Order: sequence, then structure tokens, then C-alpha cells
Amino acid sequence: MPMSLENISCQKSFGGWHKRYKHRSEVLGCDMVFAVYLPPQAEQGAKLPVVYWLSGLTCTDENFMHKAGAMKMAAELGLIIVAPDTSPRGEGVPDDPQGAWDFGLGAGFYLNATQQPWAQHYQMHDYVVQELPALVEAHFPASQKRGISGHSMGGHGALVCALRNPGRYQSVSAFAPISNPMDCPWGQKAFSHYLGEERARWREWDASVLIGEASERLPLLVDQGDRDDFLAVQLKPEVLQQAARLADYPLTLRLQPGYDHSYFFIASFIDDHLRHHASALSA
Amino acid sequence: MPMSLENISCQKSFGGWHKRYKHRSEVLGCDMVFAVYLPPQAEQGAKLPVVYWLSGLTCTDENFMHKAGAMKMAAELGLIIVAPDTSPRGEGVPDDPQGAWDFGLGAGFYLNATQQPWAQHYQMHDYVVQELPALVEAHFPASQKRGISGHSMGGHGALVCALRNPGRYQSVSAFAPISNPMDCPWGQKAFSHYLGEERARWREWDASVLIGEASERLPLLVDQGDRDDFLAVQLKPEVLQQAARLADYPLTLRLQPGYDHSYFFIASFIDDHLRHHASALSA
Repeated sequence: MPMSLENISCQKSFGGWHKRYKHRSEVLGCDMVFAVYLPPQAEQGAKLPVVYWLSGLTCTDENFMHKAGAMKMAAELGLIIVAPDTSPRGEGVPDDPQGAWDFGLGAGFYLNATQQPWAQHYQMHDYVVQELPALVEAHFPASQKRGISGHSMGGHGALVCALRNPGRYQSVSAFAPISNPMDCPWGQKAFSHYLGEERARWREWDASVLIGEASERLPLLVDQGDRDDFLAVQLKPEVLQQAARLADYPLTLRLQPGYDHSYFFIASFIDDHLRHHASALSA
Repeated sequence: MPMSLENISCQKSFGGWHKRYKHRSEVLGCDMVFAVYLPPQAEQGAKLPVVYWLSGLTCTDENFMHKAGAMKMAAELGLIIVAPDTSPRGEGVPDDPQGAWDFGLGAGFYLNATQQPWAQHYQMHDYVVQELPALVEAHFPASQKRGISGHSMGGHGALVCALRNPGRYQSVSAFAPISNPMDCPWGQKAFSHYLGEERARWREWDASVLIGEASERLPLLVDQGDRDDFLAVQLKPEVLQQAARLADYPLTLRLQPGYDHSYFFIASFIDDHLRHHASALSA
């Protein structure tokens, strides 16, 4: 029996529909909101593949849908897009005591926390990989063909979700991912709180480690702006690239000259990513 | 000697650049910010046509640039897009005493106010039609081919700017414009404060009146969603359509089924509008 969804908005876009839903998450122990774009083909009966989009620090389900300009191509390709929030939410959910923007609410890092007070709610990995797809596949004309992509913290999330769950996704890509969170300030702050100080546990959530142990090889497209202020200290795509090379993992890393970390960068290349996903998802 | 511009941001987008500038406006008596999208062709020496985008109530220069998904097509067509703010701004600029969102700051209605305390700063018509294009044409590789478009209050603004200034624009379009502001609550509130109670003065700023007296006939494209919450009470495209029919003015009004008043509606049809402008601007 699928859990119920409460529709909270519905707007026509490119012949399809942008809708937002609220639901109770058992995994996260709180109410959550997600957004879905249903292309026009969704009204024609066939089951369509789904691309999950994981947003970056401070975002909600709304940023990608408003700013990425993805719906035109999703409508053309017949892709459903689902954008979850970036952390558990609500009054009972603990936040960073200092209200930092890079940890706590809006910064769940798409992992399963093991430490208190985070472990009760911060289980974003299981939410994104299991609970949300089950809801989507029960309530919408969605097939079990799944792609996953994201930006920055969400790029990290997309890579880790795909690498940890062979067979679950048929396509994966990322924009400016936090490629080696164990060795950057954002990642170290989040991992030490959510996972504790034992660095061996951190390796299970670091794409540059996981890619070296991958049992499945999904063609991976990563775009990175070379004028991104976070490139050298936080993102480190060269570490992912080196790990992929050693593991013979099929990574295409494109360094895009002049682009920064913003949604203008994402919008400029989202069509390439959606085509990358559609190609694998329609195979 | 052109006035100076202070660049406050610069982001690569679709091979071109999204930039924001601050400058002193003599017409408005305050500092203003506007955004410009320079397509890749702007670096190749030729002078390019400019489409001015006028946003709706509560917006700034940012809404269109972030949400309309217009840059891909502007890059393809070689169009510069300029998005001004929607009112004068700053500490010395009077606002609605109750802080209403539909009058005062963010709601300049693109007219020249005649009443106190508004007349000193609220001269958005002259700013948009004269001062801003002079700046743009002095500082960027912009030709004197000008198009104008906008949404809601900005759709009203685009129509009125084009209709009041024959020869100044070569193309015009609008999304969900306030088509007959004299006879809707938003327009009556704004006009009575900015222009006074004499309705004869209001006629000079009402597109459905002006279109009946137009000495120039620019092909006009208007899109309107039929699920727009403001359609019947505030927007009234049927009044514009009737006036255009009586005046034999070349209006194409498209009622788009299912669409609302949001940027999802604008994004869905902005490519058609940019092609409409490019076709006239390249003639």
C-alpha cells in the first residue's frame, strides 16, 4: 500500500506539469516536500524513466525546477524529473547549533547519519535511493529506469547513490560535485558530525574511494566550471578523475572554461546531461 | 560623455555573459541596478539588437534572468537582453505607506508620475525608454535596433513604451499584460496615486486606449495562460484584442490552455517571443 501524497501545487510547463507534493517520510521521521516534472508523454499511458536531481547546499526542491531550464529538454525526451529537498525538515529536526549553511538543515549530504543527534532524521541516502523512488513509482507513470544527477553537495550525492547501489540506476552524471568529501572542509565538517571521527566510515561515502571499488560501470558525465570559486578547495574533480583512471571507470570530465558554480552553469549544460541520461535510460 | 557603470557581477552562461550593473540614474534620482545578457556574438565585434525585458510586480532585474530560460535562444539568435528593475530604489524613494506589494517599490508601472510624493523618483517610462538604452548603447556592442517585452505589469509597460514612442522600437511582445489598467484594480490603484484622479490622464498610459490611436503598426505577439488567476479581473486581454480589431492593429493573441501567471508559463513560450523579436530586429 503506497503512502499518500498531498499535492501542494500544480503548474503547466512545456506542455507537461510541474507539481509539488508533501508526504510523511518514515525513513526521515518528518514531513517532506518534493517536486516532480511530468512531461507531456506522462498523460499518454506509457511508463517513463525518471531522473532524480539532488541539489546543493541550502537548496530545496525548488531551485532546480525554477533555475535549471531543464523542462524543455525533459519534455522533448520524455523524462520525468524528481527533485527532493536537501535534508530532513521540520521543528523536530536538529540543525547546526550556529545555524551554519553548510551543515544541518539544507545540508544533509545524502548520507545515513550514525551519530547523535543526527541519526534519527538524517537518513537522506535511504530516502533518496529507496523511499522516494518507491513513492514515485507507485503514484506516477514512472518506470523502474532511474537516472541520478546533482550539483555540488548533490553531485556528491548522485555519485555516491549510484556507486553504492549497483543495479539501482541506469545513468549517472554530476555538476561540480564535491568529489572527495573526506579531504575537503565541507565534507570533513559534515562527515565528522554525521558519521563520527572514524575516517574508515567516511570512505563509504566518498565517490573518489567508491569509484575505485565499483562493481558496475555506468558511463559517468561530470561538468565542472574552471572559474568555480570552490573548485580547488572543496570540489577536487582531479581526485575523482585519477581514481577513475586507476579503476578504468568510464568518466567523462569536462572542464568548462569561464563557468562558475551557479545555476547559469547548470542551465548551460543541462541539456547535454539529460541527453546522456535519456540515452542510457531508453536502452 | 556616457555615464559610468559599476559592474557588480559577471557569470558565463551559454557561451555568453550574464552581468549586473549599478549606476546613477539622473531620470530617477537614485542608484539603479540592471542585468544584461551578452550572447557569444557580442565578443565578435558586430553591434547586436537589444530586447528590453520589463518584469512584473515585486520583481527586480534578477527574476527573468534566473527563471525564464531565455539565454539559450538569445545566444542562438545573437540577441542582447536587458532587464531593468521594476521601480526606483533606495532610502530616499517613497514607498506605499502600508508596504503593499502592488504599489510603490517594485511596482513603478513604467510610467512618469505627476503626483507628489511620487513624481520626483517614479519616472520609469523615461528611464526605460531613454536613459537606459542610451547607457546600453554607449557601453555594450548594442545596435539601435530595440525590442521590448515583459510580463504582467511589465507586459503593460512593454506595450505602452512601444505604443507611445513610434520609431523607437522595431519589435514588441508581452506575456499576460495588464491590458487595460484604467479598468482593473492594480491599474486604478497605481494610476490614481501616480497620475492623480483625472482619468483623462490615465488614457495616456493604457495600452487598450493607445492601440486605438497608434500611428505605427509593429506586429504584436501576446501570450496569455487561460488558468491565470489574474486573467479576468486584472489582465483583460479581450479588451486589448477588441481595441486592436477596431484599429486594425496586427495583434496575435494566443490563449495558452492550462498555463498560469508564473515563470513556468513564460519559460514555455519565451523562445517564440525571442524569435518574434529577432525576425523584426534583423530586418
